[in-house]
Amino acid sequence: MDNTGYRTGSFEGLHHSSDDDELVDIAGATLDFSSTEDVPPLSSGSYEEQTDSGRPSSSMNGSGPGGSGGPGGSRCVDPLEDPAPGVGTYEDFNTIDWVREKSKDRDRHREITSKSRQSTMAFLSSVSDAFSGWLLMLLVGLMSGALAGGIDISAHWLTDMKEGVCLNGFWFNHEHCCWTSNETTFQERDKCPQWKSWAELMAGTNEGPFAYILNYLMYMFWALLFSFLAVILVRAFAPYACGSGIPEIKTILSGFIIRGYLGKWTLIIKTITLVLAVSSGLSLGKEGPLVHVACCCANILCHLFTKYRKNEAKRREVLSAAAAVGVSVAFGAPIGGVLFSLEEVSYYFPLKTLWRSFFAALVAAFTLRSINPFGNSRLVLFYVEFHAPWHLLELAPFILLGIFGGLWGALFIKANIAWCRRRKTTRLGHYPIVEVLVVAGFTALVSFPNSYTRMSGAELISELFNDCSLLDSSQLCGYKQQPANLSETGVGNTLADRPADQGLYTALWQLSLALLFKMMVTVVTFGMKVPSGLFIPSMAVGAIAGRLLGVGMEQLAYYNHDWFIFKGWCSPGADCITPGLYAMVGAAACLGGVTRMTVSLVVIMFELTGGLEYIVPLMAATMTSKWVADAFGREGIYEAHIRLNGYPFLEPKEEFAHNSLAVDVMRPRRSDPALTVLTQDGMTVGEVESLVESTHYSGFPVVVSQESQRLVGFVLRRDLLISIDNARQRQEGVVSASQVVFTEHAQSQHADDAPPPMRLRSILDLSPFTVTDHTPMDITVDIFRKLGLRQCLVTHNGWSSLGRWDMPTTVSPCVSMLDCVSMRLHTVSPSVSMLDCVSMRLHTVSPCVSMLDCVSMRLHVRL
Amino acid sequence: MDNTGYRTGSFEGLHHSSDDDELVDIAGATLDFSSTEDVPPLSSGSYEEQTDSGRPSSSMNGSGPGGSGGPGGSRCVDPLEDPAPGVGTYEDFNTIDWVREKSKDRDRHREITSKSRQSTMAFLSSVSDAFSGWLLMLLVGLMSGALAGGIDISAHWLTDMKEGVCLNGFWFNHEHCCWTSNETTFQERDKCPQWKSWAELMAGTNEGPFAYILNYLMYMFWALLFSFLAVILVRAFAPYACGSGIPEIKTILSGFIIRGYLGKWTLIIKTITLVLAVSSGLSLGKEGPLVHVACCCANILCHLFTKYRKNEAKRREVLSAAAAVGVSVAFGAPIGGVLFSLEEVSYYFPLKTLWRSFFAALVAAFTLRSINPFGNSRLVLFYVEFHAPWHLLELAPFILLGIFGGLWGALFIKANIAWCRRRKTTRLGHYPIVEVLVVAGFTALVSFPNSYTRMSGAELISELFNDCSLLDSSQLCGYKQQPANLSETGVGNTLADRPADQGLYTALWQLSLALLFKMMVTVVTFGMKVPSGLFIPSMAVGAIAGRLLGVGMEQLAYYNHDWFIFKGWCSPGADCITPGLYAMVGAAACLGGVTRMTVSLVVIMFELTGGLEYIVPLMAATMTSKWVADAFGREGIYEAHIRLNGYPFLEPKEEFAHNSLAVDVMRPRRSDPALTVLTQDGMTVGEVESLVESTHYSGFPVVVSQESQRLVGFVLRRDLLISIDNARQRQEGVVSASQVVFTEHAQSQHADDAPPPMRLRSILDLSPFTVTDHTPMDITVDIFRKLGLRQCLVTHNGWSSLGRWDMPTTVSPCVSMLDCVSMRLHTVSPSVSMLDCVSMRLHTVSPCVSMLDCVSMRLHVRL
Repeated sequence: MDNTGYRTGSFEGLHHSSDDDELVDIAGATLDFSSTEDVPPLSSGSYEEQTDSGRPSSSMNGSGPGGSGGPGGSRCVDPLEDPAPGVGTYEDFNTIDWVREKSKDRDRHREITSKSRQSTMAFLSSVSDAFSGWLLMLLVGLMSGALAGGIDISAHWLTDMKEGVCLNGFWFNHEHCCWTSNETTFQERDKCPQWKSWAELMAGTNEGPFAYILNYLMYMFWALLFSFLAVILVRAFAPYACGSGIPEIKTILSGFIIRGYLGKWTLIIKTITLVLAVSSGLSLGKEGPLVHVACCCANILCHLFTKYRKNEAKRREVLSAAAAVGVSVAFGAPIGGVLFSLEEVSYYFPLKTLWRSFFAALVAAFTLRSINPFGNSRLVLFYVEFHAPWHLLELAPFILLGIFGGLWGALFIKANIAWCRRRKTTRLGHYPIVEVLVVAGFTALVSFPNSYTRMSGAELISELFNDCSLLDSSQLCGYKQQPANLSETGVGNTLADRPADQGLYTALWQLSLALLFKMMVTVVTFGMKVPSGLFIPSMAVGAIAGRLLGVGMEQLAYYNHDWFIFKGWCSPGADCITPGLYAMVGAAACLGGVTRMTVSLVVIMFELTGGLEYIVPLMAATMTSKWVADAFGREGIYEAHIRLNGYPFLEPKEEFAHNSLAVDVMRPRRSDPALTVLTQDGMTVGEVESLVESTHYSGFPVVVSQESQRLVGFVLRRDLLISIDNARQRQEGVVSASQVVFTEHAQSQHADDAPPPMRLRSILDLSPFTVTDHTPMDITVDIFRKLGLRQCLVTHNGWSSLGRWDMPTTVSPCVSMLDCVSMRLHTVSPSVSMLDCVSMRLHTVSPCVSMLDCVSMRLHVRL
Repeated sequence: MDNTGYRTGSFEGLHHSSDDDELVDIAGATLDFSSTEDVPPLSSGSYEEQTDSGRPSSSMNGSGPGGSGGPGGSRCVDPLEDPAPGVGTYEDFNTIDWVREKSKDRDRHREITSKSRQSTMAFLSSVSDAFSGWLLMLLVGLMSGALAGGIDISAHWLTDMKEGVCLNGFWFNHEHCCWTSNETTFQERDKCPQWKSWAELMAGTNEGPFAYILNYLMYMFWALLFSFLAVILVRAFAPYACGSGIPEIKTILSGFIIRGYLGKWTLIIKTITLVLAVSSGLSLGKEGPLVHVACCCANILCHLFTKYRKNEAKRREVLSAAAAVGVSVAFGAPIGGVLFSLEEVSYYFPLKTLWRSFFAALVAAFTLRSINPFGNSRLVLFYVEFHAPWHLLELAPFILLGIFGGLWGALFIKANIAWCRRRKTTRLGHYPIVEVLVVAGFTALVSFPNSYTRMSGAELISELFNDCSLLDSSQLCGYKQQPANLSETGVGNTLADRPADQGLYTALWQLSLALLFKMMVTVVTFGMKVPSGLFIPSMAVGAIAGRLLGVGMEQLAYYNHDWFIFKGWCSPGADCITPGLYAMVGAAACLGGVTRMTVSLVVIMFELTGGLEYIVPLMAATMTSKWVADAFGREGIYEAHIRLNGYPFLEPKEEFAHNSLAVDVMRPRRSDPALTVLTQDGMTVGEVESLVESTHYSGFPVVVSQESQRLVGFVLRRDLLISIDNARQRQEGVVSASQVVFTEHAQSQHADDAPPPMRLRSILDLSPFTVTDHTPMDITVDIFRKLGLRQCLVTHNGWSSLGRWDMPTTVSPCVSMLDCVSMRLHTVSPSVSMLDCVSMRLHTVSPCVSMLDCVSMRLHVRL
């Protein structure tokens, strides 16, 4: 099943948009996604589109209109110095330069502001520009909310389809089907004549072993069909649509470019396959993929606004907000969503984004509510309301749950990563469709007999969170009916602790089995080639564990209410333990252990319950869970998958532990040949071209001269190649013997019969970031993180410290140690081959940006 | 009333802790606060304390243990190179170096981690170190919660004291007094025989004009007494205790040092005077001061933990959390508090702080709840619960309220700043006590006749937010009793719209007058020399306006329910308009207009109501309010006060609008004499000393030699002076003729009869931040903001761009343009004299750090 797919994007083909190609070769059929209307913004931000973006690097060159001291005027004098089209754009699998992008946006903003004073039209356009961000947020919220509503409704319908069909119309789900029926009683609201199980429909009866087996087989059939459709659609149309998407979105938000990851095809396929995957009964949730879907919406909508289409940094602000939107619609928790985006996903999150994210999250939540997918005016299936307070002593079991959650989280991450690595390195990974079918079949096989695994994850959680009232018909509420306590009021008594009945014991057994099953099957499910979220399965595991502990505590308290620990608050007939609360705390603990979310998790749970009261148990469990899990490894599941896939991601939270200096990590090493530099004048076009050809560095420092290596600026390989190519085509007299001049005023010696010089000052970054060779690496990494640098040059200006390198104390060149420091230093996996799930034309970010190169690998489409 | 106060802190006195002195000379009495136990952490972070902090700048010097390439080993060989005590600390009114502080903390952390593997004790101490942050947060939460509870109870009691006294015990407030009474009915729960108004107590009756005048006089007497006590206490013991404190805390969090601002005396005095000021009936709130109180608690508790005591950056993390705690206890909104800290107050807010802030805010909220200051198990006086939904068309009046809020906010800021400037520049400011008494007297005089101004701000807001039920006895609920609508259910009808009665009309008139009065008096109140918060007065203004509009809408809808806009949802007998909601929206709009808070404001309001439903109206109003207010000026009240007071604060949100380059703003200017530099060897101690004496720069670049000005490092004036002083005292043979050597290995020429050289490499910062002269200022400002730099050197390495400065094209020195860029550039007011409210020994941050100097001004204590 090895398919060679993507064409290699070489520099020669740079001008022919070859890097927009999306050839996916599957089973012999070559699908070309690169037709014009298929290219979503993030995948089409190549230089053809960005050609008209004005002066992309003008402020970097200090030649903006207001720069009183800069060489501002020279622009108009020499039109040839205007950067060529394509300068300032990025290739796929490259990292963006945040500083440059933000400069670009500031220039654009300044231009609009200065123009707006001149005419009314310009003023109006500046106003519309200012409000375009809000409009975009509104659209993102509306679109994501609508999609989430559609996904919820479809998934509900397809899930019920596995069990039966509605005679009034096959498009009704079970609940909806029975609403319309008059024959439904409150006690048996799930049963109505219109809803027929498959056995009833086919064999006419729902009783007996034959009907059971028939239902069983139909359940398995639908599960296999749905999962097969999901995996085949992903494989055929959008390989990027698999998984949860959060690791990749984190990477994209940190500044990496993955063309097509947030494109139109990904959106369509992910939406459809998400419904199928959830309905197939696999142990996965829709929360992570919803974040991906929201980000796709945002990216596509960015296309409508020049401001966002043309600026990678601005677009990432919108994507951060979209991540908040995704969680907002997944849990009906707008504030939690914003905090999730801030805490877990985003890299660069200015305060303006916070406010806009919140707006978008709210819009999405209200759109979803007006669609009302669950028919209960709630945003989520498991809205809960507890009435009983909790006791301080209950913190002990809550912390126990936290420990369980932490252990489970750590274990899950280790097991899942080991399994995913196995998938990448062994033949297992060559059969994604078979894998999905096997897992789906096994899941369906085991799930059906147990009612707690047969229901969907969200329903299970909803039932576990639920507080039992006397009228509740659930098996989990199978308590013995107490004789009415005469001394108590009837109202308080409906919630009082009662002894467990046989029904509850059965339920507990089933729950224990479900727990074991869910724990195992989730490990192999997450990471398969279908859209798969992790929130719901993790929460389900925790909720089961919590409910078991809660019921245990309840019975313990009921039978031993005279123990001194229960004495204070557990008198007979009183309601002292709420098992539903335990389930919720357990769910939070397990989710916290897996994702290492903290504030956002607690706030999401707070928004689910609405009570400030229950924050403390949640917090205790989440904190414990995080500490316990961190003791086994500091990475959450998303970071682990980022590392597994070798994405270049510089974790913003992580502390840099080493104590090295910039001089220790810079390239070239001391033993390497000296740094390749360009001189600001004196080199010919031919020399520059051969130098660029002979190396694969993605950028070159420009120095005063080879003897006095004083730094003038930095020029990117891509910009250089594009400019030379452009000049050769358009500018007369540019031959290989032409001088390349980076200075502002060309020296006069070229006046003789030499060809006119080629001026490249406009593409020269005159303010490259430099650090001294003695800068500690933790400070350097901090600079990279906070400013979003792409590269950094290392300078050495004094010579005294050179002694220990056995250099003679002579006048060493000023910038001789000039070199660049590793960017995204410690997340770089040494071997970046074999990316699974997505086939990428990968730009390996080697530990040093001076070595940074666009290795056009012919990667195997291993899907 | 000009009092000269603070002693000047000169460099000569540096070793004698003179900069810890807090001499406040008031009315002839000199109080010395500088006894040992009075010195709070932030005011005692001077170098005596930090002596044992190990190698404060070791990582900056690249000599950490793991630095393989650094000059690591030299430390042990030459013990004299250890930095002298005091090196690496800051003077008062200086800006901290975030990079250095963070490096210090990382070194400390690494040391503890590496030690922890060696012994069990060390491991335990590393664990306790890791948990000390959480313990500190717990303590901050407990202490702040307890103090807030105390403040609430005392303020309630003293406020009631203005009207009367409880016979059961004078320490009962009105409500508490009547709780214990059996004779209280539900309808007249405010009246009980135990509670006597002053007229009843003194004249025996509460009827008639005499009793009214007697009550009036007693009310004014108490108001004047409380305000007099407040202002005199502030003046006498803690001038820093005045105002809201939020502008100063923002400045401190951005890295400025104001010793004593968060000290013990400030805490004690602010707590007491806050109670007095609130009780005096002045138009001020306790929310802002509570943030200050919480920060004082945090700062004092930091003293208990070495980790936080010795590191200015770490301490600021705790202070950020404390700001969240302050808002949490003020509004019972922990999430809102954290977002407030993130959005409004904090400068450097890592994610770890987010989680800890949340923890501390929760602890504080629960401490406050367990104190139960309002007797209703609620955290705040104005918890509200609405039942009716709002209609989409109601967004129009909500947006109107937003416009009102924005206009009021902009107007308030302009008026208040004008008034405060007047206070600073005219003789008005010389009589703070008289000012407070006049304002308090006027407020009391006007407030008493109007019941809505007589009650405290929080009570007023609570009443305005309240939804009228049929049983409500408030005047605002003076609707005509409707005959029971037979067609409707009784329950739904209790909240139905009803026509206004005479009582309501009276209330509306009184409210209108109260609105005008509040609007005027708040302008002159905020900024007086008493603790004064702005949240409650702003919210009161907005709530009144909102309630007026709400009642108006309600009556309009009642009488015109057949208009097509009301037709949909305002049938007779239905509850279609909730005036309380309008009040809440108005309050949010006005608060938003004044402070320009956005997310945090909405979240605080959300936490007050608990309903997701009402976020949309709140958001619409807040957004409108911010946009309207921003159109008149982008500064919120806190930023305006920061600018008014000339604090060095680099606004993180503001965009840098200019288009200049680093070369344009660096010092020295082109016309100035060349930059003063030290050479790495060849200078004698005497030369260095005279150079330092003759200039007032706070730091000097160290270059290779005067001819080849290549940058080696940067040395701070303070470190240099301390080290030389220390060496002269302790090291033998250091005389004025001794060579000062910054190199790692001293040259051999000093072997002859010359005195041994003095090595200062340990205080040399080998990795100073540099930018090229062509770096745009917006990027430079970004670097300053994000990394928290103190200074930045400007280098010029190529000479080509020098042409326009008419320099010959010769080999200009490599670092000749070396200079430093303005730090905190655009917030620097040109004249920094006359700080009001607090008397500071001010460090003027001149536009250039190379000019940065510790001007020890003998500022007038103008309090």
